[in-house]
Amino acid sequence: MTAAKGQVDRAAVQDLLAEYGGLLDLGRYDDWLALFAAECRYSVMPRENYDQGLPVALILCDSRGMLEDRIMALREANKYNIHIDRHLIGLPRIVAEGASAIEIEAPFAVYQTDQEGETRLFAAGLYRDRLEHAGAGLRIADKLVLLDTAAVPTLLATPL
Amino acid sequence: MTAAKGQVDRAAVQDLLAEYGGLLDLGRYDDWLALFAAECRYSVMPRENYDQGLPVALILCDSRGMLEDRIMALREANKYNIHIDRHLIGLPRIVAEGASAIEIEAPFAVYQTDQEGETRLFAAGLYRDRLEHAGAGLRIADKLVLLDTAAVPTLLATPL
Amino acid sequence: MTAAKGQVDRAAVQDLLAEYGGLLDLGRYDDWLALFAAECRYSVMPRENYDQGLPVALILCDSRGMLEDRIMALREANKYNIHIDRHLIGLPRIVAEGASAIEIEAPFAVYQTDQEGETRLFAAGLYRDRLEHAGAGLRIADKLVLLDTAAVPTLLATPL
Repeated sequence: MTAAKGQVDRAAVQDLLAEYGGLLDLGRYDDWLALFAAECRYSVMPRENYDQGLPVALILCDSRGMLEDRIMALREANKYNIHIDRHLIGLPRIVAEGASAIEIEAPFAVYQTDQEGETRLFAAGLYRDRLEHAGAGLRIADKLVLLDTAAVPTLLATPL
Repeated sequence: MTAAKGQVDRAAVQDLLAEYGGLLDLGRYDDWLALFAAECRYSVMPRENYDQGLPVALILCDSRGMLEDRIMALREANKYNIHIDRHLIGLPRIVAEGASAIEIEAPFAVYQTDQEGETRLFAAGLYRDRLEHAGAGLRIADKLVLLDTAAVPTLLATPL
Repeated sequence: MTAAKGQVDRAAVQDLLAEYGGLLDLGRYDDWLALFAAECRYSVMPRENYDQGLPVALILCDSRGMLEDRIMALREANKYNIHIDRHLIGLPRIVAEGASAIEIEAPFAVYQTDQEGETRLFAAGLYRDRLEHAGAGLRIADKLVLLDTAAVPTLLATPL
């Protein structure tokens, strides 16, 4: 049986996820960064490693500064690797709700379109986010991107 | 930071998008047309053109009558091009909310299955919709379909 | 025109779908089974058959016990067919709301990742669910999985 969770939180979680994918795909990286808390963590890990207790991250930014540096590097690299990303993020599952934070999981798929206009599935996986209340909304305190796809060819070029 | 937007509007936006994709995939085109306002606009454009300020539409229906004609033509054409469409529409991002209209963006992917039963990604992109209040719900006043995929092979056969 | 449906029900429907896909992808089959009512039905059918009034199911479990047996068999089989599933379920469309049950439809896509780490679209289609109220939430009384994809290569290995 599934109980209906707090309405306001669910709405805010859905807004945050929609902004997360939408801003990335629009290339609005500064606005995307603003979705993260001042103290935050962003990591990308193959699900296989995670399941086996081998927490070796493909990407690990354990501060907002590191995440900003990462995005700066992406911008530079993408001048030479022009493509369009499209995030499809599924309905989130609220895993835990506390007074100050919400833990959620949401499946995602990212499609990438190259300069010839061909669109391919780029990656699929699961977001595991810890979100903190900030005013009327939520910010990302910890985002773990668990990747189903091991062989992401140009991983560095696209934030997941 | 993301603030939780008006609850009723978000629910109505989600309902509208779910109806939009669901009715198309069921081939219930008359019901689909009823989702549009009496005065409406429907256009499909490659995102690349849009970003470069070259607003050359692949499809442009700037009245309800034109959209109805379009759908009639599709029905005729699809007697000879039998396929199944499946729209996956992501969580919408509410871009602007006014007294009479809401602007939203939502990512989408369309899968197409041919007569051999093989399913392929057909197109991915972004909906940019202006929605108007109509009674307890919303209708589509302007729908701009921004296509990531340039090389849509049988574009005319499937409303996006 | 689309009217905003009951808020609580929509939230509970979305929760249920998010749990449905999330628990399957995590391999938490016992928790997944608990989403079904004590008296339930689960069937998988090609959409083509359904549309033509040939209700021949690929899978038909018309009791909870049959569904449990099915899952047991899958667990055994998947020891030798290791893969990761990822369900993306679109926004649900509420088709009918009664005092004791809600009928919904939701599009879905399932991606499968093999041991080489390659992710492919596995199947796309439509869920048609009858959901029953159970306490504060909902349980699945009848789930019909209408498959767009006819040629699902290893259908038995993955619950849809």
